[in-house]
Amino acid sequence: MATFGLIEYDDADPEVRAVYDDIRAVRQTDTINNFWKALAHDPVALRRTWESVKQVMAAGALDALTKEMIYVAVSVTNQCGYCIASHTFAAQKAGMTKEMFAELMAVVGLANETNRLAAGYQVEIDERFKTQE
Amino acid sequence: MATFGLIEYDDADPEVRAVYDDIRAVRQTDTINNFWKALAHDPVALRRTWESVKQVMAAGALDALTKEMIYVAVSVTNQCGYCIASHTFAAQKAGMTKEMFAELMAVVGLANETNRLAAGYQVEIDERFKTQE
Amino acid sequence: MATFGLIEYDDADPEVRAVYDDIRAVRQTDTINNFWKALAHDPVALRRTWESVKQVMAAGALDALTKEMIYVAVSVTNQCGYCIASHTFAAQKAGMTKEMFAELMAVVGLANETNRLAAGYQVEIDERFKTQE
Amino acid sequence: MATFGLIEYDDADPEVRAVYDDIRAVRQTDTINNFWKALAHDPVALRRTWESVKQVMAAGALDALTKEMIYVAVSVTNQCGYCIASHTFAAQKAGMTKEMFAELMAVVGLANETNRLAAGYQVEIDERFKTQE
Amino acid sequence: MATFGLIEYDDADPEVRAVYDDIRAVRQTDTINNFWKALAHDPVALRRTWESVKQVMAAGALDALTKEMIYVAVSVTNQCGYCIASHTFAAQKAGMTKEMFAELMAVVGLANETNRLAAGYQVEIDERFKTQE
Amino acid sequence: MATFGLIEYDDADPEVRAVYDDIRAVRQTDTINNFWKALAHDPVALRRTWESVKQVMAAGALDALTKEMIYVAVSVTNQCGYCIASHTFAAQKAGMTKEMFAELMAVVGLANETNRLAAGYQVEIDERFKTQE
Repeated sequence: MATFGLIEYDDADPEVRAVYDDIRAVRQTDTINNFWKALAHDPVALRRTWESVKQVMAAGALDALTKEMIYVAVSVTNQCGYCIASHTFAAQKAGMTKEMFAELMAVVGLANETNRLAAGYQVEIDERFKTQE
Repeated sequence: MATFGLIEYDDADPEVRAVYDDIRAVRQTDTINNFWKALAHDPVALRRTWESVKQVMAAGALDALTKEMIYVAVSVTNQCGYCIASHTFAAQKAGMTKEMFAELMAVVGLANETNRLAAGYQVEIDERFKTQE
Repeated sequence: MATFGLIEYDDADPEVRAVYDDIRAVRQTDTINNFWKALAHDPVALRRTWESVKQVMAAGALDALTKEMIYVAVSVTNQCGYCIASHTFAAQKAGMTKEMFAELMAVVGLANETNRLAAGYQVEIDERFKTQE
Repeated sequence: MATFGLIEYDDADPEVRAVYDDIRAVRQTDTINNFWKALAHDPVALRRTWESVKQVMAAGALDALTKEMIYVAVSVTNQCGYCIASHTFAAQKAGMTKEMFAELMAVVGLANETNRLAAGYQVEIDERFKTQE
Repeated sequence: MATFGLIEYDDADPEVRAVYDDIRAVRQTDTINNFWKALAHDPVALRRTWESVKQVMAAGALDALTKEMIYVAVSVTNQCGYCIASHTFAAQKAGMTKEMFAELMAVVGLANETNRLAAGYQVEIDERFKTQE
Repeated sequence: MATFGLIEYDDADPEVRAVYDDIRAVRQTDTINNFWKALAHDPVALRRTWESVKQVMAAGALDALTKEMIYVAVSVTNQCGYCIASHTFAAQKAGMTKEMFAELMAVVGLANETNRLAAGYQVEIDERFKTQE
């Protein structure tokens, strides 16, 4: 259970409601995830985090689906159960197929493996990787 | 310096050379990264790892560039210096622009932040995330 | 369920009871956390770990509450569910308010984000950070 | 070397300079850390990250020194070399003595140890930790 | 619940069944772990991962029990609940006693602690550790 | 460079020298690793950490070499450069051959991979793993 419980819309202060309203508008859904309801105990953090998410996750040089899959990759690497569940869901809504998910997992697994091989064998960085201009 | 040093092509056994040759052919380059030269002390692991990399990183449901960026996302999350350098290089060769890199970093940073907020606030998983059919 | 189950006071050997007694005396409570009951299967580790906790967590140059919050910061970064629950509880008992918890989470989240930005952009350490005398 | 190099004040665009100016004003120093100079290749991220740092790290329910030490705790847990160096420096400037640093390290080390003991022994969360009202 | 559910033997395609059959033969058991049943949605990854596990975990220069304990050490460090449960079980089947488990945990805990002390105190690598010939 | 520099034997206080002397006696060497020289700025932590290392790393139900390899496995998983270098060195002194190291790395890499596959596919723990009596 969330540390301070979840704040539902009807119980929320105006500044929390304003963020909830914006989430609903941007995501075109009535549902507010538990993450936001738990974070709402700190309205300033709620606002700051939502503004960052809105800005960072919007399509730009990378499309929104790619960004959701990168989010899943990080969450899986960190073993964050909540984040894996919520962002896998979000990525599927954004168009991730089962085939894409499977390839995503394969890359995440492999990268976690070779990250340790590189560290364990104490591999020094190739000179050409150091000058990227 | 790598734990057992780096094995150059001219000093390599035939089974190591065979992998080096395949890397060169698949990647269309003469250069073998230090990672492979360090791992070559275990020819079986060299072969197994290379076959996995070749299979997993090839374009499929996800394109090769997206896969390289996911690799970078994992490596950055794990603080693997060698892997960050080598896969940022590889992603750039595969077409990652500075704008794409910047957005990639922004997502990786944000995901690492919210992973901790979700854990720290002990947020329970939303019911609808649990039934994904 | 704990790997070998939990050892309750009434079922404990004298050397385990002695540690339980000391925990109760130092913490001025009758309750022994599950952590200690699970670890009690290794009485030597139980004793060593408790002595370390008693020594390290006592007020010194840092007060006990600050130390509990640092414990929470580490546990959240590591995604340790048990430790987040138990040390958030302990920090609250030591005086952590909801406002302090919220700021703690904000710092932990931000540090986890910028740790990855620093690594991802491969930032070299400033010269003045290297000579700290 | 940073992936895209460091952007010095004299070479910076107006929007980057504006952030640099604000950093200098808030921190009352002429020096801009390499972290910001590397991040300046993405002026939007530079601005967003700096605004978050300014907001989150300011004294509030927790004082500024405590926040810097929490930052160090996270950075050490994550093995982020740059962040350890820069935030140890910052914490020292904010008043962290050698004794405080030593106790900080002891808590960080111990928490990382017991995080694994709790996970390894598969300890279930005590009931009383679940209802925190 | 697993993202795409678990694929039981009777519902499996021939290529999945072939892997299940090999697992059963090698491990001399009728039981297939949930891990494989969840991964079976990607038959190529199922095959590749199983072949790697079979090759890497077989007794060689290190015996099978030592390998299982190393697996547990990694899983505990990463806070992977599933992996801790499954590989503790496997290690016990391979002969790990309670005493061995207790010592394993003690080493894992200690290593996680000193890893952070080394990083936090920014200890430079001793010269003699760099030349291992 | 270590945060507060390294304390050499000739410059050490009696309580630090006593630990150095014990390290030399137990390890039958004149050399004190940089780790201890950096930690010596906190003589209490130096003593506590050394006593733990001495107790935990001594041969028991697991032999000393196995313990060193587990230490390496943790250090590699955590990307701790200092610890990888120092404990690979120690393991080699304790008898780890190149073949053993190679198998150790293969297990560590594989475990880090499958840890993420298990988390990413959200695999639920098998019932039989939960009752270990």
